[in-house]
Amino acid sequence: MSHGYEAGRLDLPFVGICTFGKYPLQLDWNAIDADVAVLGAPFDMGTQWRSGARSGPRAIREASTLFSFGHSGAYDHEDDITYLPAGSTRIVDIGDADMVHTDTLTSHANIEYAVRKVLAAGALPVVLGGDHSINIPCIEAFSEQEPIHIVQFDAHLDFVDERHGVTRGHGNPLRRAAEKPYVTGLTQLGIRNVSSTAREGYEAARAMGSDILSVRQIRKLGTEAVLARIPEGKRYYVTLDIDGFDPSIAPGTGTPSHGGFTYYEVLELLDGLARRGSVVGIDLVEVAREYDPAGTTAILAAQILLNFIGRILHHRHP
Amino acid sequence: MSHGYEAGRLDLPFVGICTFGKYPLQLDWNAIDADVAVLGAPFDMGTQWRSGARSGPRAIREASTLFSFGHSGAYDHEDDITYLPAGSTRIVDIGDADMVHTDTLTSHANIEYAVRKVLAAGALPVVLGGDHSINIPCIEAFSEQEPIHIVQFDAHLDFVDERHGVTRGHGNPLRRAAEKPYVTGLTQLGIRNVSSTAREGYEAARAMGSDILSVRQIRKLGTEAVLARIPEGKRYYVTLDIDGFDPSIAPGTGTPSHGGFTYYEVLELLDGLARRGSVVGIDLVEVAREYDPAGTTAILAAQILLNFIGRILHHRHP
Amino acid sequence: MSHGYEAGRLDLPFVGICTFGKYPLQLDWNAIDADVAVLGAPFDMGTQWRSGARSGPRAIREASTLFSFGHSGAYDHEDDITYLPAGSTRIVDIGDADMVHTDTLTSHANIEYAVRKVLAAGALPVVLGGDHSINIPCIEAFSEQEPIHIVQFDAHLDFVDERHGVTRGHGNPLRRAAEKPYVTGLTQLGIRNVSSTAREGYEAARAMGSDILSVRQIRKLGTEAVLARIPEGKRYYVTLDIDGFDPSIAPGTGTPSHGGFTYYEVLELLDGLARRGSVVGIDLVEVAREYDPAGTTAILAAQILLNFIGRILHHRHP
Amino acid sequence: MSHGYEAGRLDLPFVGICTFGKYPLQLDWNAIDADVAVLGAPFDMGTQWRSGARSGPRAIREASTLFSFGHSGAYDHEDDITYLPAGSTRIVDIGDADMVHTDTLTSHANIEYAVRKVLAAGALPVVLGGDHSINIPCIEAFSEQEPIHIVQFDAHLDFVDERHGVTRGHGNPLRRAAEKPYVTGLTQLGIRNVSSTAREGYEAARAMGSDILSVRQIRKLGTEAVLARIPEGKRYYVTLDIDGFDPSIAPGTGTPSHGGFTYYEVLELLDGLARRGSVVGIDLVEVAREYDPAGTTAILAAQILLNFIGRILHHRHP
Amino acid sequence: MSHGYEAGRLDLPFVGICTFGKYPLQLDWNAIDADVAVLGAPFDMGTQWRSGARSGPRAIREASTLFSFGHSGAYDHEDDITYLPAGSTRIVDIGDADMVHTDTLTSHANIEYAVRKVLAAGALPVVLGGDHSINIPCIEAFSEQEPIHIVQFDAHLDFVDERHGVTRGHGNPLRRAAEKPYVTGLTQLGIRNVSSTAREGYEAARAMGSDILSVRQIRKLGTEAVLARIPEGKRYYVTLDIDGFDPSIAPGTGTPSHGGFTYYEVLELLDGLARRGSVVGIDLVEVAREYDPAGTTAILAAQILLNFIGRILHHRHP
Amino acid sequence: MSHGYEAGRLDLPFVGICTFGKYPLQLDWNAIDADVAVLGAPFDMGTQWRSGARSGPRAIREASTLFSFGHSGAYDHEDDITYLPAGSTRIVDIGDADMVHTDTLTSHANIEYAVRKVLAAGALPVVLGGDHSINIPCIEAFSEQEPIHIVQFDAHLDFVDERHGVTRGHGNPLRRAAEKPYVTGLTQLGIRNVSSTAREGYEAARAMGSDILSVRQIRKLGTEAVLARIPEGKRYYVTLDIDGFDPSIAPGTGTPSHGGFTYYEVLELLDGLARRGSVVGIDLVEVAREYDPAGTTAILAAQILLNFIGRILHHRHP
Repeated sequence: MSHGYEAGRLDLPFVGICTFGKYPLQLDWNAIDADVAVLGAPFDMGTQWRSGARSGPRAIREASTLFSFGHSGAYDHEDDITYLPAGSTRIVDIGDADMVHTDTLTSHANIEYAVRKVLAAGALPVVLGGDHSINIPCIEAFSEQEPIHIVQFDAHLDFVDERHGVTRGHGNPLRRAAEKPYVTGLTQLGIRNVSSTAREGYEAARAMGSDILSVRQIRKLGTEAVLARIPEGKRYYVTLDIDGFDPSIAPGTGTPSHGGFTYYEVLELLDGLARRGSVVGIDLVEVAREYDPAGTTAILAAQILLNFIGRILHHRHP
Repeated sequence: MSHGYEAGRLDLPFVGICTFGKYPLQLDWNAIDADVAVLGAPFDMGTQWRSGARSGPRAIREASTLFSFGHSGAYDHEDDITYLPAGSTRIVDIGDADMVHTDTLTSHANIEYAVRKVLAAGALPVVLGGDHSINIPCIEAFSEQEPIHIVQFDAHLDFVDERHGVTRGHGNPLRRAAEKPYVTGLTQLGIRNVSSTAREGYEAARAMGSDILSVRQIRKLGTEAVLARIPEGKRYYVTLDIDGFDPSIAPGTGTPSHGGFTYYEVLELLDGLARRGSVVGIDLVEVAREYDPAGTTAILAAQILLNFIGRILHHRHP
Repeated sequence: MSHGYEAGRLDLPFVGICTFGKYPLQLDWNAIDADVAVLGAPFDMGTQWRSGARSGPRAIREASTLFSFGHSGAYDHEDDITYLPAGSTRIVDIGDADMVHTDTLTSHANIEYAVRKVLAAGALPVVLGGDHSINIPCIEAFSEQEPIHIVQFDAHLDFVDERHGVTRGHGNPLRRAAEKPYVTGLTQLGIRNVSSTAREGYEAARAMGSDILSVRQIRKLGTEAVLARIPEGKRYYVTLDIDGFDPSIAPGTGTPSHGGFTYYEVLELLDGLARRGSVVGIDLVEVAREYDPAGTTAILAAQILLNFIGRILHHRHP
Repeated sequence: MSHGYEAGRLDLPFVGICTFGKYPLQLDWNAIDADVAVLGAPFDMGTQWRSGARSGPRAIREASTLFSFGHSGAYDHEDDITYLPAGSTRIVDIGDADMVHTDTLTSHANIEYAVRKVLAAGALPVVLGGDHSINIPCIEAFSEQEPIHIVQFDAHLDFVDERHGVTRGHGNPLRRAAEKPYVTGLTQLGIRNVSSTAREGYEAARAMGSDILSVRQIRKLGTEAVLARIPEGKRYYVTLDIDGFDPSIAPGTGTPSHGGFTYYEVLELLDGLARRGSVVGIDLVEVAREYDPAGTTAILAAQILLNFIGRILHHRHP
Repeated sequence: MSHGYEAGRLDLPFVGICTFGKYPLQLDWNAIDADVAVLGAPFDMGTQWRSGARSGPRAIREASTLFSFGHSGAYDHEDDITYLPAGSTRIVDIGDADMVHTDTLTSHANIEYAVRKVLAAGALPVVLGGDHSINIPCIEAFSEQEPIHIVQFDAHLDFVDERHGVTRGHGNPLRRAAEKPYVTGLTQLGIRNVSSTAREGYEAARAMGSDILSVRQIRKLGTEAVLARIPEGKRYYVTLDIDGFDPSIAPGTGTPSHGGFTYYEVLELLDGLARRGSVVGIDLVEVAREYDPAGTTAILAAQILLNFIGRILHHRHP
Repeated sequence: MSHGYEAGRLDLPFVGICTFGKYPLQLDWNAIDADVAVLGAPFDMGTQWRSGARSGPRAIREASTLFSFGHSGAYDHEDDITYLPAGSTRIVDIGDADMVHTDTLTSHANIEYAVRKVLAAGALPVVLGGDHSINIPCIEAFSEQEPIHIVQFDAHLDFVDERHGVTRGHGNPLRRAAEKPYVTGLTQLGIRNVSSTAREGYEAARAMGSDILSVRQIRKLGTEAVLARIPEGKRYYVTLDIDGFDPSIAPGTGTPSHGGFTYYEVLELLDGLARRGSVVGIDLVEVAREYDPAGTTAILAAQILLNFIGRILHHRHP
């Protein structure tokens, strides 16, 4: 009986260790040599409803292996493009930032440290949350970089300044970002329904340079018109809260909000962004496996990330 | 180390006892002093497929706490309105009607008794089912009130007269309602696919004053045209079967039926109703936690109810 | 105390043995006397990600009992037609093909044998998978029949020729079908995102007579235009991979792919097919109960099958 | 490619229609010709906590197919006996009693009718609940039979006379049984912790001829001493509430109570009963699939029933 | 049709608002007038593996309603005692301590504040966690009280002094307790397997007055011998980590450890404690609903607490 | 704000990539330099009931991270031994054998190839199934090694010779092993209840040198007496079917069988084996995440493996 290793492995999706997209593991952060570096930030002490977002990185990594069929790349018949071509795609998984239970500041500092390492290596950081508060250290890691414009997909504005002393919870990140001198503007997409931000938060956001659009407003405008409102040719940092999507496809999250985006609505906006400027940072947050019984939320996160990364790399080096 | 009570509680959504929306509990039904009174009716002996709807009131109450961020109200940036303003909103949770296992008639009588108490107090009854049969005693409690027009959101017509002696099951309520002299008409929205009602039921419904529209018919007509078919300026009783929504957002129900409403389709119709006349009674039925692994169905129920109640109160006292 | 049997059974959906639609069981395959014969093919050794599709036949059979209210048929108020009229509908459930663990060839041969028995009896075979590889023996059973045109609903092209010696996995069936001399063409609907088929597979498919359309392309074209691309008056074999539907309504499957069909998009295409030609074979594959916590995927499978069968029989004998 | 039917089917457990133990289906209750007849009684309107027991019959039937390997019988190496030998075992599944939603009396009457049919055929009735109230019509069906002694396995005494008019709920059955002139005594095993029966219920039970033992008392006594307390050579009716077992192996039930029986504790008592007298009726109640995520409760029910039936038939015809 | 309120409510377990045991709600902490006050402490930022323990209070409260049948009390036939007699039992639910996300110190301070309020009212505090770190503020609240001896049921020693600056995580509480001058000793029961405490932790614990016993050691000693090792006549503070129980009955927790206690092993030790001295404080921690699919863990927590409280009150006022 | 990396990582269990026990990943099988090499064998085409065992390796790896607290080792206070001391423990995770869907022989050959690589490196192979058929290639890989004695923990005998041509399914492995000239004997522990092996299988097993003991027989004998029946000083290959454990702690498996082992019963036998001879190979099979909603089965697998490996290494180099 012969085995199949001589001809190389078939490497079916359900086989093997779960790194992101089955890309190589690089735990030496001084030796990152890649276009894209994927980092886990399993922090959920910033949540105000159901916890669980610390399970996000492991859930997304495992789901991402579904999309690694060992082919020469990811052929998309609608675009007639093979994204992530096997030979030239340089992605690494650098593991997780170190978390310290009970200690928000140290955990956040550890995330910032890791993102700075990625930026120092010249790679695009893709950070898997964790709750949305992990966006705070991610943005702080850009303090020495060229200015950025933030594009957020989310049900919630997350623009609370401070309540009961809390400034680094999952309701605060976009406010923290807007305060940074190197953040030139914000585009906040999908915002809907009541949430943790009161009227004052909306007013403050607009005053600080934010363009806020609900799902219904975006549907009325259309993809192109929405893209046109985003300054062209900028360096974009994209923060994707999975609850920007509809709960029908993203039940696995702490605070689902009905009336959200479909898959293609977001993909088409991301595709437009990848063509419109330079994407310099990404985080995808709030996936919680505890509420994702069929795994579809984690699959959504992996699917949108791999498609977005593929488009970014393709339009950078077509 | 100081605590935080001097400055008031932060009162995060996951903290505290689960009354509806964290509004006050009023178990003395002779002392209801509110604009809205929320009642649980955990009855599921009327179901013909999966039971479990008795878990609805507890599931919806818990989910509703997600929407109570302790702010001054629920700010909706699309409408630029703060619904349910903290100072002036008078909602109470009056607990559940008493249920008697094996005994449909007594359980229904107990629901009717409770709704009559709410009406006597001049409050708007909002009843959390339970299966759709609990609509029967709810409507019966209106026998001494001014006439009402019923607006139903549902996958199923629920217009069976009698089968094997059953007249108070979850397939019978709209027929029971249509028989009442104080019910002036019915608008039945979302009705689709095969169900427990045969052709004769549809003919009877139309003969008794019903306007029946499927989800696809409503999409073709548009929200405004559908609203225009509902008599204006009437007293509306709204019965929301959660299975009127699509199973993608409402899996947690006994008899899901594919091809249902999205969240905003229903919200916009409810918003129109709140502007078009006076909503005098509401029930939301058929939420079953047993089939709601991510809690999204209960969240949907809470989200639509709080938004509907907010709009009713706002348009009553803008 | 009297019982209720004199007047016949009420036969509620949750009562009784789970045959498909509660239609009669016919385990003697030499005595099939029906218009439609439903067969289970619980095979999942062809899967490349999550297994579990062997649970499909039992899950779909149980879900199908939801739609058997013991009425005179299935009245559809939108079409004003009673499908599956009680007196004249001749459907039987013939149980499952025999499976042999570890042995793909014998299991497939057993499926082919059963489908041949159905065809020999002049009945329409409706096969409940199992993973998509079970389509291979189903199509092989048509070798002595008149030519067929295949219409596929699926997220994935499933057109891999051979990898590591595998020719009968769930990524191969449409390639195997296209090779058959009695398959005159293929229409592949819903194909999207990256999958197990590389660019070469798409090119081969088109070269072998396939018309490939994504969900978004179909939405742009509209139902009628899509139907117009399918040769008219042909004998259609329809293969429905449940993952052609969106994961929001079909989470219970091995390889969900976001951005899929809604319920009515598929139903309207199937309704058009039933009017446009003769449907001579059906399989519905990839339902896996393990990932279907609310049972909605199995309900979707049962709902679409019963509506499709009803339309086929109605348009055959209106 | 040849198929495998010439040599007979392998008939793996996951293949085929779910009748109890894959034994033949006999829906004509006037033609029952068997030693054992299995009946479903999917009634759960008698429950006082979580509903769902209506799913019991389908769950147990499906689980029972695990134990049907198509062998010549069930060989037990500890006893060195092949129970349920293929050639001579005469078991049939007669489907479910007809249920009428909202109507306890008719549903119970329908169960009684079915059990009477089984008794008239001379077969041993094995009834799959449904909640424990279904024991009431089962016992009533024995009114024309020789006297019986009831052996109950349960966490709860279920000896409530009447509360709020309820006499046929799942807290009443043993009281109803004790009132019958043809019930000569009761042995109530596993009773523990607080429950729906107050002190008066225990006193009444003892006064009416009941021997009540807790799990801990039984462990102290040992199997033989417990058996010795049960009158020898009698006709035993055994009612098995699945919550008599520990929640660790029977989580799938409405009202779990910690501190219950292990599998072998019950099996050894049942084995002793089968040797000690004549078992003339069995019900197994309160399995609720909604709370049985791994299916182990249904497997327990099937495993204990098949082993018990095997021992009854073996000791009757060794 | 008459309703049933004149005769009082039946008040079935599934009906009504979820306070602990359905005892009265007292949200004014200056007006606590009771023998026992139940407090929720939904904090889970101290966890090192799966989060979710913040859901504990709500899960336990809901489960506790199972045990409130509206009787005159909880009759235990083994002890022939009616615990918690209706007329004289004075228990209140005082809601939850206020939690501040991201902020361990303030959240802990708020718990301490609440426990001090209970102690000031002369009531027995029963605190529902939350992770085991909530024991730290609970013990700190006893600083002005007479000395206490701590009895812990747990799989883990939780005696880590400090790691990476963490001193108030769920691995630290017993070390924090042992440092207090008013803690006279510790009895640590159920400790087993590897965990977050290294050898040094065990040595330190013993040096600081701890008696450590594994489950197997306790089984060998027997209940009485274990009780004899606990100083008699002391004021006991009991901290129950639900993972002290076996994962078979307590799966719903963050860090399950196999080989744990059965229900009666713990109950009998608690019963002995209630007879042996004065129980002055209780916490039950680490219940996480996210991992409790059948609800049996929450039922276990409620069952052990209600039985323990009943025994404490009974032996205090027999 | 400073980060925490200078002092080394805290490396909490929920953080980081899931290799077994967080031990290093070694994907180059020609460079295995370790005492223990852990291999995944995600094959489930040999199952006869529920599939899903292919998820075992990923589930066990993730669960195993719970036990990696970054300490100096795993201190066991009962044994007063620190197993797996940090400095000197040489364990590697070598990823998974390559699987080929639909093809049992190639998949098995690939497993055999990998185990041979481990043996060639002089490491102890620890193979994570997959269904029990993966034991077949594991044993075949020992053909060039010194003779082995097999110790099996299992509910089922798995001694079927051939049925319908199947010789490498999960009912066949012990028969295949017994046929090998280098297998000197078998000890089969935990065998109980009916299963896929008929009486002839038991007779054949005994004839081929097997000692078969049920759980109850082992409990009567005691650990020492059971160990005494196993030839001393031999080279043991241990195959652990997770269904040897009781379903209460191992629900997450294809074919649970009630009445199984507790955790310590197995651990004590394994501890005895590690002292009694040389353990030269281990597989742990049949963990299926699909049926393990609380993750306790995977935790059990990881806990027993890490404790067993720790004891093997300790007694080899005390």
